[in-house]
Formats: sequence, C-alpha cells, structure tokens
Amino acid sequence: MPRPCDKFDWPLEWPRRNLLASVGPEPHRLEATEGTGVKLQIVLTNLAHYTAPLRRFGASSLGRMFVLAIGLAAMTAFTVSDLQKSADFWLSACLWCCLAYFAVEGYVRAQAALQAGKARNYLLSASGIVDLVAIFPVPIALACGVAQPTAWLWASLWVLKLAQNSPGFAQLARVFVLEARPLASVLVLFLIVLFLASAAMHVIEREGQPVAFGSLPAALWWAVVTLTTTGYGDEVPQTALGRLLGSVVMICGIATFGLWTGILATGFAAESRRRNFIETWDLVSKVPFFQTLDPTSITEITHMLRRVEIPERVAVIRRGRVGDCMYFIAAGEVEVDVEPSPVRLGVGAFFGELALLGDSVRTANVATTKPSTLLILDLADFRKLMAHHSELARVIDAEGKRRLGENLRRRETGARGDAVAS
Amino acid sequence: MPRPCDKFDWPLEWPRRNLLASVGPEPHRLEATEGTGVKLQIVLTNLAHYTAPLRRFGASSLGRMFVLAIGLAAMTAFTVSDLQKSADFWLSACLWCCLAYFAVEGYVRAQAALQAGKARNYLLSASGIVDLVAIFPVPIALACGVAQPTAWLWASLWVLKLAQNSPGFAQLARVFVLEARPLASVLVLFLIVLFLASAAMHVIEREGQPVAFGSLPAALWWAVVTLTTTGYGDEVPQTALGRLLGSVVMICGIATFGLWTGILATGFAAESRRRNFIETWDLVSKVPFFQTLDPTSITEITHMLRRVEIPERVAVIRRGRVGDCMYFIAAGEVEVDVEPSPVRLGVGAFFGELALLGDSVRTANVATTKPSTLLILDLADFRKLMAHHSELARVIDAEGKRRLGENLRRRETGARGDAVAS
Amino acid sequence: MPRPCDKFDWPLEWPRRNLLASVGPEPHRLEATEGTGVKLQIVLTNLAHYTAPLRRFGASSLGRMFVLAIGLAAMTAFTVSDLQKSADFWLSACLWCCLAYFAVEGYVRAQAALQAGKARNYLLSASGIVDLVAIFPVPIALACGVAQPTAWLWASLWVLKLAQNSPGFAQLARVFVLEARPLASVLVLFLIVLFLASAAMHVIEREGQPVAFGSLPAALWWAVVTLTTTGYGDEVPQTALGRLLGSVVMICGIATFGLWTGILATGFAAESRRRNFIETWDLVSKVPFFQTLDPTSITEITHMLRRVEIPERVAVIRRGRVGDCMYFIAAGEVEVDVEPSPVRLGVGAFFGELALLGDSVRTANVATTKPSTLLILDLADFRKLMAHHSELARVIDAEGKRRLGENLRRRETGARGDAVAS
Amino acid sequence: MPRPCDKFDWPLEWPRRNLLASVGPEPHRLEATEGTGVKLQIVLTNLAHYTAPLRRFGASSLGRMFVLAIGLAAMTAFTVSDLQKSADFWLSACLWCCLAYFAVEGYVRAQAALQAGKARNYLLSASGIVDLVAIFPVPIALACGVAQPTAWLWASLWVLKLAQNSPGFAQLARVFVLEARPLASVLVLFLIVLFLASAAMHVIEREGQPVAFGSLPAALWWAVVTLTTTGYGDEVPQTALGRLLGSVVMICGIATFGLWTGILATGFAAESRRRNFIETWDLVSKVPFFQTLDPTSITEITHMLRRVEIPERVAVIRRGRVGDCMYFIAAGEVEVDVEPSPVRLGVGAFFGELALLGDSVRTANVATTKPSTLLILDLADFRKLMAHHSELARVIDAEGKRRLGENLRRRETGARGDAVAS
Repeated sequence: MPRPCDKFDWPLEWPRRNLLASVGPEPHRLEATEGTGVKLQIVLTNLAHYTAPLRRFGASSLGRMFVLAIGLAAMTAFTVSDLQKSADFWLSACLWCCLAYFAVEGYVRAQAALQAGKARNYLLSASGIVDLVAIFPVPIALACGVAQPTAWLWASLWVLKLAQNSPGFAQLARVFVLEARPLASVLVLFLIVLFLASAAMHVIEREGQPVAFGSLPAALWWAVVTLTTTGYGDEVPQTALGRLLGSVVMICGIATFGLWTGILATGFAAESRRRNFIETWDLVSKVPFFQTLDPTSITEITHMLRRVEIPERVAVIRRGRVGDCMYFIAAGEVEVDVEPSPVRLGVGAFFGELALLGDSVRTANVATTKPSTLLILDLADFRKLMAHHSELARVIDAEGKRRLGENLRRRETGARGDAVAS
Repeated sequence: MPRPCDKFDWPLEWPRRNLLASVGPEPHRLEATEGTGVKLQIVLTNLAHYTAPLRRFGASSLGRMFVLAIGLAAMTAFTVSDLQKSADFWLSACLWCCLAYFAVEGYVRAQAALQAGKARNYLLSASGIVDLVAIFPVPIALACGVAQPTAWLWASLWVLKLAQNSPGFAQLARVFVLEARPLASVLVLFLIVLFLASAAMHVIEREGQPVAFGSLPAALWWAVVTLTTTGYGDEVPQTALGRLLGSVVMICGIATFGLWTGILATGFAAESRRRNFIETWDLVSKVPFFQTLDPTSITEITHMLRRVEIPERVAVIRRGRVGDCMYFIAAGEVEVDVEPSPVRLGVGAFFGELALLGDSVRTANVATTKPSTLLILDLADFRKLMAHHSELARVIDAEGKRRLGENLRRRETGARGDAVAS
Repeated sequence: MPRPCDKFDWPLEWPRRNLLASVGPEPHRLEATEGTGVKLQIVLTNLAHYTAPLRRFGASSLGRMFVLAIGLAAMTAFTVSDLQKSADFWLSACLWCCLAYFAVEGYVRAQAALQAGKARNYLLSASGIVDLVAIFPVPIALACGVAQPTAWLWASLWVLKLAQNSPGFAQLARVFVLEARPLASVLVLFLIVLFLASAAMHVIEREGQPVAFGSLPAALWWAVVTLTTTGYGDEVPQTALGRLLGSVVMICGIATFGLWTGILATGFAAESRRRNFIETWDLVSKVPFFQTLDPTSITEITHMLRRVEIPERVAVIRRGRVGDCMYFIAAGEVEVDVEPSPVRLGVGAFFGELALLGDSVRTANVATTKPSTLLILDLADFRKLMAHHSELARVIDAEGKRRLGENLRRRETGARGDAVAS
Repeated sequence: MPRPCDKFDWPLEWPRRNLLASVGPEPHRLEATEGTGVKLQIVLTNLAHYTAPLRRFGASSLGRMFVLAIGLAAMTAFTVSDLQKSADFWLSACLWCCLAYFAVEGYVRAQAALQAGKARNYLLSASGIVDLVAIFPVPIALACGVAQPTAWLWASLWVLKLAQNSPGFAQLARVFVLEARPLASVLVLFLIVLFLASAAMHVIEREGQPVAFGSLPAALWWAVVTLTTTGYGDEVPQTALGRLLGSVVMICGIATFGLWTGILATGFAAESRRRNFIETWDLVSKVPFFQTLDPTSITEITHMLRRVEIPERVAVIRRGRVGDCMYFIAAGEVEVDVEPSPVRLGVGAFFGELALLGDSVRTANVATTKPSTLLILDLADFRKLMAHHSELARVIDAEGKRRLGENLRRRETGARGDAVAS
C-alpha cells in the first residue's frame, strides 16, 4: 500500500535529492466517493502538509503571514496616486480588514494576558508593543485629521509582526551583545575615518564643487556613501588630491567592513555551538539508549546530535534513497513500513542505522505518526561514536543485524510481489 | 519590600526579555517627604544606574561624550553658511566652551603626569597626542589668520577623543599585526589588479571617452571605484571590451575582498579566544571554589567562564525569569533577596545554580551591593563542567540542595502572604 | 629515460611552483616515424592530460562546456540587432546545432532511464528538468509564433547545464538548509529595515522629489538599492533628514550583510569538516596499513587525510622539488622512477615519506599508471601522526630507511651517469 | 648606559604601546668625534634598523620598492598630456632609469641561474617571467614604432615586481586551490543568476529603454554591475517588474558574495593553522629545553608557539613595560641588560618568563645581538603549558626564581643609583 506521505520529503534530506519530486502528488488523494466534510478535511490536512516546512522558518502561522502580505501590499499600492484613484475602495477595504484582523489578534492576546493577571507584562513585552503599534497609530492618525494615504503609512509598522514570536532574533541579538565591545570599536573607527575624511575633503573640493562639498554636512554625506561602498555618485571628488583621499576612504571602508564581518562571524560561530548544545542536551539525557553512559560521554554525544521537530505524517526516510544519517526518537512516534505489517517505534528507539552500517541505501519507509522530535546523527559523527563508545557500537550493531535478519526472513516468507517500486 | 533595582536588568540578560520593561520605573522613587539634598542624590544615583550599561562600551564618561557630540555638531553646523550667519555667536560660544573643556581635561592629565614624573611618556603616548591635537590646532590656526569656519575645521580632530582610553582598539590593531603578512599580500594583489586593469582600460576606452579614461590617473580612479565595488558611475566603460574587462575587475574586487574578510575573521577569532582566556584566568585562580582543582582543570574552566563587571545596586537575577547561566563572585558582593531576611554572598561564592539544576526558573532576586566582578558560566558549559569534574558537581549539587531545602522551609514557616508578584 | 608526464604537475603541488613550467612541453612527443593512428591517439591522450585538472571543477565533459559556451555566445549575439542582420544565418545555425546537441544528450539520458525503468524518476530529477528546459522552450516558442531573437532568449536556460551533475551545489544548498533559521531571521530584519526606512523616506522626501520618492514602491526601490549597498544613484535623498536616515540605512545594510556572511561562514566551516570526513573514511578503512589501528585512531587519522582523484599517467611527485606531504594509495597504482628499473606500488602502499623524514627534497619521480585515488597527509599532520601513533611511526620510519638504503645501494652499484637533470 | 636600540620596539609589542615613542630617537647617536667612515656605517645601520619592520611585509628590498614606486608614478604621469608636455624629458629619464635598474636586476639573476646551470628553470619560473615582462615589452613596443606614452604603458607590468619573491602569495593561492570545488560552484551560481536575470531584464525593459536593455550584452553588463553590488547607475530598471527583478538580483548578489567570503574564511583558517605548525615545528624540535618531552607534547606545544624573525640589535623587551608573552631562542642570541654587566643568552635559552610568573612588568631590557629567530609563547598558552606539563613548569619556575633572586642580590649589592628611568 503506497503511503501518501511517502512523497513528502523532510527538508533535511532534499538538498541532495530533486526538489520537484517532493512536491509532486498530493499527500492524500481526494476520492470522489467520499463526502464533502471528509473532502474538506483532506484538503486542510494536505495544506498543513505542504506548509509544514514553511512553518519552521519563524512564520508561526501561514494565515497571519498572508494577511500581513496583503496588508503591506495594499498599503504600498495606496501611496501610488494612480492606483489610489482607480481602486480606492478596494484598497481601503483591504487595509481595514487587515487592521481588524490584527486588532482581533491583539485583543485575544491581551485578554489571555489579563486572565493570567499578566496584563502589564504583556504591554511591556516585545509582543505587546508590536500589537500596540500595529493597531493604534493608523486610527489615531485618521482621527487627528491626517490625509488618507499618509495616515495609512503607519501600517508599515505591521512589518514588525514578522519578528513577533521569532526565536531567531534573540540569537542574533545575543551575538551583538556578546561582541558589543569590538563592534563598538569598529563603529568608533568608522566615525573617526568619517569625520577626518569629510573635513579633509571639504577643504580640498569646496572651491571646485561648492554645492557638493561646500559644507561639512554635505562632505559627511559623501563620506558615508563612500565608506559603506554604496557609491551613489551624486557627489564625486574631481581633483587629483580628492580622488587620492577618496581611494583611501574606500579602502578603509572595505577594511572596516571586513573587520566587522569577521567579528560577527566569530561571535555567531560561538553562539551557534552554544545554542545547539543547549537545545540537544535535555533530549539526549532523556533517551533511554544513552542513559547507560557516563556524563562525560553524554556531553560528547550532545555535540554530535542535531535536533529537528517533525510534524505528524511526514516521511523521514524513503526506501531506496541514499542515507547519511540515523535518527533517535526523543519524542513522538514513527512507523516503519516493513512487510507484512508496519512496526511502530516510540521514544528512545532509533532507526536509519542500517544504511550507515551497510551499503547506504534505505531499506524501508519511515514516517512520523505524531509530531515528533528526532535527534539526527550524521554519518561522520556516527563513525566517531562507534569508534569511541564500543558498548553503544555493540548495541546498534546487534539491533541492526537483528533488523536485517528480520527483513531477510520477511522477504523470504512473504515472497508475494509488492507493487511498490516508486 | 520591592527593591528599586529589581527593575533594572543586566544587559546580558535582556536580549531574550523585553527591553522596555527594563527601563520603565526608576530605580529609586523620589519621595516628597525627603529633603532637596537627598532628592538630588537620588537623581544622581538613578542617572548612574541608567548609564551603567553605556559605560561598558568604551565611553569612559558620559559627560565627555556629550561635550564631544555638542562640539562636533557645532563644528559641522559652522561650515553651513546659512547657519553660520544666523547663529554665529551661539555656535562660536559652543565651540569655545568645548575647546575649554578639552583644554582643562588635557591640563589635568598633563599635571598628573608631571607630578608622577612621566611628562615625556604622557606627551608621546596616544592619549597625550590626542589631547595635543584636540587643544592646539584651532587656536594656532586662528592666530595664523585662518578664517573662522576653516580654522574650526581642525576641531574635527576631536573625534579622536572617542578612541582615547579605549581598550578595544588594541585588540583590533593586534589582529592587523598578527595577520600582517597575508593582509599585505592581499593589498599587493589589489595593487596589481588596479594597475593592470587601469592600463588596459585606458588603452581600450581613451578614444571613446577622452575625459574619463584619457589619462592613467583617471583610469586608476575608475579602477579603485570599481575594485572596491563602490561604483560611483562617473566613469563607466562603454565599449564591449571595456565592459568585459570591467566585469572581470568587479569579480576580482569581490574575490579580493572576500579573502581580506576571511583573513580578518580568522585573526579575530584567534585573538578573541586569547583575550578571553587572559581576562578570566587571574580571576578564576583567585576563586576559592576552584582552588581544589589541578592546573589542567583550571585551564579548562577558564575557557568556559566569561567575565563581566557589574556596577553597584544592579539586579543580576530576577525571580520568575528563565535562567541559563550561573555566577561566581570574583570580586564584590551580592544580596540574595530571600525571606525572611536577605542573604549576602561574598567573593568566592556562587549563585544562580538552582535554575540550572532544576526547572530553569529563577527563585530569588539577586542584586549587587558593591561594584562586582562576576564570572558567568553558561548552561552548556555548566553541563560540561558537571560531566568532567565530579567533585565540583558534588559541591554545587549539595549547595543547591541545601538552598532549595532552606527555601522550602522558609516558605513553610514564613507562610505569610508576600505581596511581591511582579 | 625522461618520462613524458614528468612535466605535468598535479594541481595540488603547483601553487608553490611556477605555473608556466607545468604546461610547457607536451606529455607525449609526436615522433614523425609513427603512423597516423598512433599520432591521433597521442594527440587525444595529450588533450586528456591537459584537461584533467579542468575536469575536477565540475565540468564533467569539456566538449559539453564548449557547446554550451558557443550556444550562449550565439544567443547573446543574436539579440544585438547589427550582428543579427549581418550574421543571421551563422548564428541561427550555431543555435540549432547546440539545440540538437542538447536534444541528443537528453534523448540518450532519457533512453537510459527508460531502459532502467526509471523514466519518471528521471523526469522529476534535477537533471531531467534541466534537459527539458534546455530542449523544449525554444521550439515551442517558435511554434507559437514568437519572433526569432525573442524565442531564442529561452536558450539562456542552457546555462543551467553548468549545474547539472555538479556535486558542489548539494553542499552549498546544505549550508543554506542547516543555517535556514538564522538566515531567515536576517532576511526578516532586512525586510523590517526596508519597509520602515522607505516609509520614513517617502514622508521626508516626497515634497522635494515627487518622482523619486512620491510613492512607496519608489521609496522601496531606493531602500533596496541602498540597503544592499548597490547605490545606483538614480534616487538620492536631498534633505538633511533624508540623508541622516540614508546613512543609518547604509550602516544597517553593512551590519545585516556582515551577519549574513558570518552565518554562512560558520555553516560552511561545519559542512566542510563533515564532507571531508565522509569522503575519506571509506578509503582509510580500506588501506591495509591502517587496519592494525583501533577505531578511535582511524577516526583521528581520517580527519588528517585529504582525498584526491588523479587521472592516469600524471606525475604526482617530481624529483628535486621540495615536498610537504606524503601519499597513501587508496585505489589505483603508481610507478616510482628509481634506477635501475621503476618500481610499481599498489593499493595500500605509501610514498613520499622520505622528504618528510629527511631533508624535504623529493628523491624520485612518481607517476600514476592507472586512474588513482590518493590520500594526502600534510607535513603538519604527518608529524602529529608520528607523535601519537608510535607503531605507525615505526613502520613508516623502517620503510623509509629501507628505501633510503636501497636508493644509496643502487646509486653506488649503478654508478653510470644518468642524463636526467631537468 | 642607555642602549640605543631600546627606543625601537618590535612591532609585536607596539600595538598596546604608543607608536610614536618607537620611532623617536635614532638607534645610534652620531658622535662628531668619529670619522666619516664610521659615521656612514652608523647611518646605514640606523637605516637598516628603521626599515627592519618594513622588510617583513614582503618588500624584500626597500631600494627596489623605491625604484618601483618612482617608475610607476612616472609612467602614470606620462599619460597625462599636460605633464607629458611640460616634463617630457624628466619623465622619460626616470622611466629609462627604472628600466635600466630592472634590466640589471634581471641580468644578475639570469647570470646566477646560468652559472648554476638552471637557466631554463629560471626562465620558466614566476620570477623569471616577471623579469622578462618588466624588461622587454617597452623596448619592443618602441622598436615597433608605438608612440611614446602608449609604449610606456607596458611599464604597468612592473607592478608585478611587488609579488616577486613574496611567500604570502603561495599561501593565498593554496586557499583558492584547496577550496576550488566550492568556489567553482559559487561561480557557476553567479553565472546562472547572471544569465537568467539579464535575459528576463532584457525582455522586461527593452521597450522602455532600448539603449540600456535593448540587447543581451547590455543587459548582461547591468546584471554584472548589480550582482557584484557595484551599482554604477548607468543602466537602471524603470518598470515595476524590472525593479522587483533588480531587487532579487541584488539580494542574490549579497547571498552569493557571503557564501564566497565564508568559503574563503574557512579555507584561510585551515591554511593558517597548517602553515603556522610547519613553520614552528622544526624550530621547536631543535630547542634543547623541549627535547625532554615526548612527541605528543611537542606537537601540542608547536601549536602554541609563534615564530618571529628579528633583525640584529632590535629591542625585544623594554624594562617597565607590561608583558604578556615569553620567548624561546630558536636561533641567534640576545643580550639581557642587567646590572652590573649584561648577560648573553644563546640558542635554547628563554627569557621574559618573569613578567608572566609575577606582576607582569618587564624587569630588564632585552635586545638581539644577532639576527635571531624567537618563538613567542603567549600568556594564555603559557598558562596552559604550565598546567599540562608539570616538568616544564618546574624548570621555568626554578629558572625564574633563580633570576629573580639574582636581580634582587644585584640590586642590593650594586646599590649605586642608575640614571636609567625612561
């Protein structure tokens, strides 16, 4: 029986495979014989399926993102005078709908906070402030008599909704905080070059180009545009000396920028290691398989594992594909599609080890039956683990051989031709 | 009793929390019943509170930075002829005041150096030179008869005051020194591409555009603007061959720049590791808690700890927040806000371990009572430490259990409702 | 006897040597006395020789790349109206030939897939889709009556052929997938700055420049051009406030970009380590020399080795050169050019260790006789290996001494002057 | 007696100190009483002193660099028609002199190669080719009747002399070779975006802007300028769709560039580690102090040390400065300036350990008496070394204590006031 979710690859596996194959046929076939209610349910399930990978990227709800996109597009279109005249009603309607949506969303959240007695916390939290600036500025501006398109410009604050509830920002902010001292030094360096270069350029070029370099603010504008290597070209030095100074400023710009990037790269590498360890640790210590290990080994293994959250009914492994990782189940449940009847594996079990021990081809389909948290062990780390922890190696090897034997026995006994070829 | 400084989070903790909450209510409430002297003192203390995080960023004194900003702004405004005419007096007054301020500052420093018999050292030090170029050029220029706005342009050197006493620059300079050889190679590569490209472009384009590419200096200007990817657009190749060459130059520019950034990133990562070790080592070896360890373990632990300087009366931990680090006191003192009476912890003590051992919620407020130096141990490193050093794990665990027991006993005996909820 | 392939250095060795020397004389001399068939064979062998390093860079077949280059060039020329008029026939012929070539290629591949019963797999694979979009759009467009040059624009899709069968893309894609979360956060940050900056700029500048900033889409265009530091200069803020905002946007652009680069650098470093381990592991475990080691040591050694594929008859080591690596033969065979007769080394043997043990000058020429896979051990890692694995050190040392002894004995006995000096 | 070279800091120490102090007084005072020959010698020695740090940066000879700079400047000036008319004779003379200088240089080198029987090697080496292209093109062009300034444009090839004999290039080239595969993938990505974007832009914008986007080559030029974020602004999309596509291209440009930089950063970090190990290893194994260690420890220590070459008579350590590293002498000799008479330390000795063991202030001046090679051990690594190798710790500690005792005894006995304060 071909399982519907087989066609849907988990994003971690598709880079090496063809992307197209993974979005081909739908996860559930709509059979004409079924009732409308069932049909609708299947459509919704399919939609949830297809958007599962999207949801990982911080967009907590696709609906919200859709409203947001519509709202921002309408707001943008509203400032174009032609569109504003021809489609005034529709754009206004769109904008008011979006505003209503955000107002309801904010109200629900505020209500929940009030009931939990945390109203003040909510108002002062990032989420609360985003809700406030999304809802109130436009009505207030309209009430104060600001003209239509201008008042709706406040709706550009809706873009902050993108960042609401996104954990990734905390991580980026942490990099900036940890590396605050060197980054501040680079900014000071930037300011010093900026001021000295623009003062010198002002002196050099003010006679030839009194408009572009006649005052220090104008020269500062040139310096910023040049030092960031933006280079609009609205103010360009003309004298030989000015051009020499300009060259130095450009090279300083690149040097400063390189330093800045280097600092952020260093900070991000450290933060990334730290976050991964923390995310994985709790899960590792809960997997029974690892509980025989001493704390030192657990620390070591934690560095090797990568955590992924997988929604319900998503294929993790597809038969016949080349595999380069194995999985431990930290939460949830998966179903292994073996003959004659599928086997379910629960928390603490592992799968996918056969491809690592043998000839690297997956021998069965594995799909989640519940939303699951898996720990991924890459081939490289798998081999290191096998090398350093002989007891784990023995357990995995024994289980692998047992499963292989079972597979063979099943294939021999259940020698009926199966149509699954894919 | 709600402690005033509770509302003030240490910058290391706020990225994950709401920024706004941390600057809401003032640290000390101004009570109307108190005298003016006391009021003034409170205002000053509050100001010191709020600017504490700012002071970390190399701005050794907020007042100085303010004077500097005023001075640079006035100098900039002075070069705009309209402003100069309308506000000549005020701008001049501003500039003279700033100059006076820097003169006094320089005088104080010189005096101190003279008394210590190190006048020559001071004059030749970076700090002394910055003082000199901040004070003397403007009066000398005015004395030499240079016109007003031009003479004051020398005040742009005041921007160097930003770098005075900033330790971050030494670090950046060290990166450049350590990686001097590869960086010099990249610069040579840059020069080679520059010269060859501009000579070729001069030959290709000089007939079509005799002004823009008619001489090698003009072509060199084009090459610098292109190779740094600034791209003013004042000189653009028009022929097919010229555009092909231009494309190659742009791609070379990106390649060179990438190499440059890569070198700086590598150098900065090494320097960052080194600095952190040196900053932390002395403190670690002084904490009694670590003195039972052998040198190898101390080296290892030093790599895990991060040092922070925290001013007086700043909340380090707030009850109810989620915690992901513990603290060792290397210098200073903190007060733990437990019932019935606060407990003070001195040098060598640790706190915040309960959240790491248990359910990650802070169980008490902790605030500094003196300017303190704390060593921060992240959750990830805490777990590695626990895994590798069983004796430390035992001590921390025992202390954690003792404190937890005390907390419970206190809550049972002192069963009066406390109003502190926040 | 001077061996022809001596003159041809393996790319891994040439950075330190002169590039020119390595492409000087041809690998096989064409002797006039030989027949035409032999001559042709020699020419082809030589061509294969010279293009061997090229083939490593993902260009699986030089012929294909040549057809592709011709096709893209013809397509590009076809859009220039002058060329189109003057060389219509030749360009059309060129394009049709290329199309025919790709059609044949696609047909062969489809045929192979059909025979293997994997037609559907092929059609949905990246390779199949590239074949489809390379072959069909142009004929379909022409059939639909689209004018000549416009229809041939679809031939720009041929550029995708460059990526067909290239393993490097999987690696780059993996970096993006692994770091998807932080990269998405950076993109969101980018969008937030974009929208807020353009709304503000629209308000600030719309009165002065109604065309450039009169609508939000126009202001968004400015914001994108500025935030990416492209800086066309077609829309430039003119007011003081606008320029201040513009400066902030430029600096935000650099900060965002630095973060982006830092994330990719971190991700790439991790992915690079992982890939190298996986590529090397299988080979290492098959080399007999390493089979005495325990798994932990094999893991360690795997990290030190780098795999290279070398075509037949290519010189790996040249006598008299300075060497800084040794080689293990994982597959294939090499011939060591020692007197009196060359020695052949097979799978599991090693060579090049003499230069690392002694005075770093290669004592013999070594060339592959079959396509071989070698594992390279750098000098730095060689010394670490010697330090940590005394048994390996003993084996390599003994073998080195034996060979050195043999070399000396040979030189003494076979004391005839050999003319090979090069 | 104040030693002359005291005033000259080794570049590794100056970032933390004032730069100015280090170039103040000259290393040798010219005494009027001495003869002219001695005076000249002193001047030359002083010059060698001051240029010593410069020579580290790949400029093997300052004189050559000077000739090169003059030559390139004259060549550049020669293309400016005004200068050419007014100073024709002088510029020509300059250029001919430089050409003569390079011809002599090339001749000397060729002669040396001939005598060593390696003429062919020399001609095919990078150095030989640079010599050839520096000497011959200009005379040949003049002989062929090319006009004066155009013929001299070939002199721009002189810039290659900068790279001659520079070891840094090999290192950069190695990074490119090692990371060739991913870099090639990025280039292919770049090409794909380039072609597809320009074909699409050509279709979108050709009606509105027939000159800028009317043909594919023009659109390709736009795509290159945009994708590299150069942004000349000579061709800018005007339609909404074109601008949307342009935005995507810019963001792709930044993404591609970030990947490129990330790859180079990763490659450079690996190469940098490798090079440092190889440079240091030979020296470490020759220092007697380390010869008691087992190979594993030597490998470990090699990673900690950094090698520097210091010319004769340069101060390595200055009394009273804060020190954060110690030195091992791998070659050469240093003189420690202690009372009553200086002590000389030879190969295998170490110095500077007192500041690391005690209060971090240098207690004596140390200067080289011969060109020396020192191995620098940073404070961070010094502490790790002390922690892991107790036997070395004991030796260094004992020697430190002995020297400290001697210092104290000397100070007590030799209680005459010494005037050296600085």
